[in-house]
Amino acid sequence: MRIDYEKLKVFCGHVFQGYGFSEEDSGIITDILLAADLSGIESHGVQRLIRYHKEITDGMVKLDAVPEIVKETPLSAVIEGNDAMGQTLAYHAMKLAIDKAKTSGVGMVALRNGNHYGIAGYYAKMAAEEGLIGICMTNTEAIMVPTFGKQAMIGTNPIAFAMPAKPEAFVFDAATTVVPRGKLEVYAKRDGVIKPGWAVDENGHESTDAARVLSNIIGKTGGGILPLGGAGEETSGHKGYGFGMICEICTAILSLGTTSNYIYKTPHRANISQFFMAVDYGMFGEKKELEDKLSVFLQELRDADKAEGQDRIYTHGEKAVIAKADVLANGVPVQEKTYEEMKMIAAYTHAEAYLPEPL
Amino acid sequence: MRIDYEKLKVFCGHVFQGYGFSEEDSGIITDILLAADLSGIESHGVQRLIRYHKEITDGMVKLDAVPEIVKETPLSAVIEGNDAMGQTLAYHAMKLAIDKAKTSGVGMVALRNGNHYGIAGYYAKMAAEEGLIGICMTNTEAIMVPTFGKQAMIGTNPIAFAMPAKPEAFVFDAATTVVPRGKLEVYAKRDGVIKPGWAVDENGHESTDAARVLSNIIGKTGGGILPLGGAGEETSGHKGYGFGMICEICTAILSLGTTSNYIYKTPHRANISQFFMAVDYGMFGEKKELEDKLSVFLQELRDADKAEGQDRIYTHGEKAVIAKADVLANGVPVQEKTYEEMKMIAAYTHAEAYLPEPL
Repeated sequence: MRIDYEKLKVFCGHVFQGYGFSEEDSGIITDILLAADLSGIESHGVQRLIRYHKEITDGMVKLDAVPEIVKETPLSAVIEGNDAMGQTLAYHAMKLAIDKAKTSGVGMVALRNGNHYGIAGYYAKMAAEEGLIGICMTNTEAIMVPTFGKQAMIGTNPIAFAMPAKPEAFVFDAATTVVPRGKLEVYAKRDGVIKPGWAVDENGHESTDAARVLSNIIGKTGGGILPLGGAGEETSGHKGYGFGMICEICTAILSLGTTSNYIYKTPHRANISQFFMAVDYGMFGEKKELEDKLSVFLQELRDADKAEGQDRIYTHGEKAVIAKADVLANGVPVQEKTYEEMKMIAAYTHAEAYLPEPL
Repeated sequence: MRIDYEKLKVFCGHVFQGYGFSEEDSGIITDILLAADLSGIESHGVQRLIRYHKEITDGMVKLDAVPEIVKETPLSAVIEGNDAMGQTLAYHAMKLAIDKAKTSGVGMVALRNGNHYGIAGYYAKMAAEEGLIGICMTNTEAIMVPTFGKQAMIGTNPIAFAMPAKPEAFVFDAATTVVPRGKLEVYAKRDGVIKPGWAVDENGHESTDAARVLSNIIGKTGGGILPLGGAGEETSGHKGYGFGMICEICTAILSLGTTSNYIYKTPHRANISQFFMAVDYGMFGEKKELEDKLSVFLQELRDADKAEGQDRIYTHGEKAVIAKADVLANGVPVQEKTYEEMKMIAAYTHAEAYLPEPL
């Protein structure tokens, strides 16, 4: 099933207004939500509407929350999110980092007590669109098992990094786990067999049993997803674990917030921490010269010799550009289950009149 | 064979003075070289003396080079290395980043036309020892094959990150490839079989044949080492490729230097680029409070449930502390071949009187 992007955007805008968000905030939330669908990251797009519905109606996302800047310098700020909506908090935090970078060269904003904010890449790209390097990270509910462990202690902890280039920006956005949880769910629905190197069972042994791993994660009975690099040290799982830790330091430690192992542990609070950074690379040279140099290298990578059986080497951000053209031309792919959830949400938010028909 | 650390230090100091470095510079180079042995990273320690010998005598490392700061702001600098010795260049670049962070909050220094500088973690730790977050990256000769490719385009491109904590600092230092080249060499000397997921052959297919992969790398006939995450996208090799790209951007692009695919391509020049960053996290809160928060989380990780058959979860930096105690007590492990090289180098630099006997 596909739904026209523009109609879906109008619908989501009315849904969020239906919960009580202002027209402006609803527009921001919708733009970030659908940016995932436009980038081909279905897991973080409109299919997540139900998650936000639950968190808003549960009170985990507080509509009347007023975030506060609790510490500030020309280069930095710490924001106490007071459980406001993740996307609006993050949008304004990144705006603040961008403003600081434009004025001072660098802007670093750490945010605590936020909520799930969608895709990290969106915020990194906001800076790239302003001619800056953008960096964004978030911690998440613990699901990564540290090397030699069997207990989830660190989140999927994605790291995003963007810099302008031609024909399109370099945009890296990746969980520091091998795969995100959503991928396990997809494989569980297929034949129930996940790939070796993705996850460990409740004893800390590698497991390809999707149902077992997922039920352990849900029941918090041990096991979880492996860090990028897999189990043990042979294929360097300790490096993915380390990148997850860098994310944890920039988010939870710098903001004096909550580490992944305590996220979603307090009733009706997420306690997620995030980090937003922008760098004016004009400090290092003529901006166009730096962008051109990056563009040349990206092209050299795309032109490099392909492995037998492969016809394309992608640079980071390219797949999103391809997905965007498809989604704008052919609509947003929506699962039957998601459409049913949209109907329920439309009724709850009095947005039935805007519920788009599938194409 | 083991050699007393202090005696080895005196010997190396005289070796570098023998090449013509000042006493001060020789001390810096020696300290960085042996820091690898002290950290248990034998591959980057005294066994590399022969590499530096070759690069100095070849003229690739220019003893009379005078590095220049070609662009500077209160937060940033770009250094033209003019092919000076990698360790002294990098030491002063990190010092500059540290000074800027102490004065302005953040210091970012990009360096071009440098040389091999030893372990990235050393420089990140320099900042941590001054109560700052330290970040350091270097690009290296192309050896990483991008996802779906068969041609080495990116270096091992290590990323290091350090922050003070108790009982010891968090120090992450990792190549963004699955393994460094040295690991292939070690396995080639054993039974010639490397692990699946480490490297690809000249056709871009995964290979466990160490000799074949190494001879391809040396002959530049295709293939190379895989990015962290392995081949293709199934175990997220594209993420390691992306982290390698972040390193490339911070080093070669910001410095307007040379990307990995052109390193060691000009006769008698390395053209390596590096990046040094320090952040005063006092911008975000009471420094002790932030350090304590990190220390608590590191302890929670060490205390977390172990996988069956494992009795310890390490945090990043711990293994180096263990290695240091061993090396100081029992001496630096040195291979027979390395000792023979040391004899030759001692003769060349007139440092025979300081060549230490094995313990």
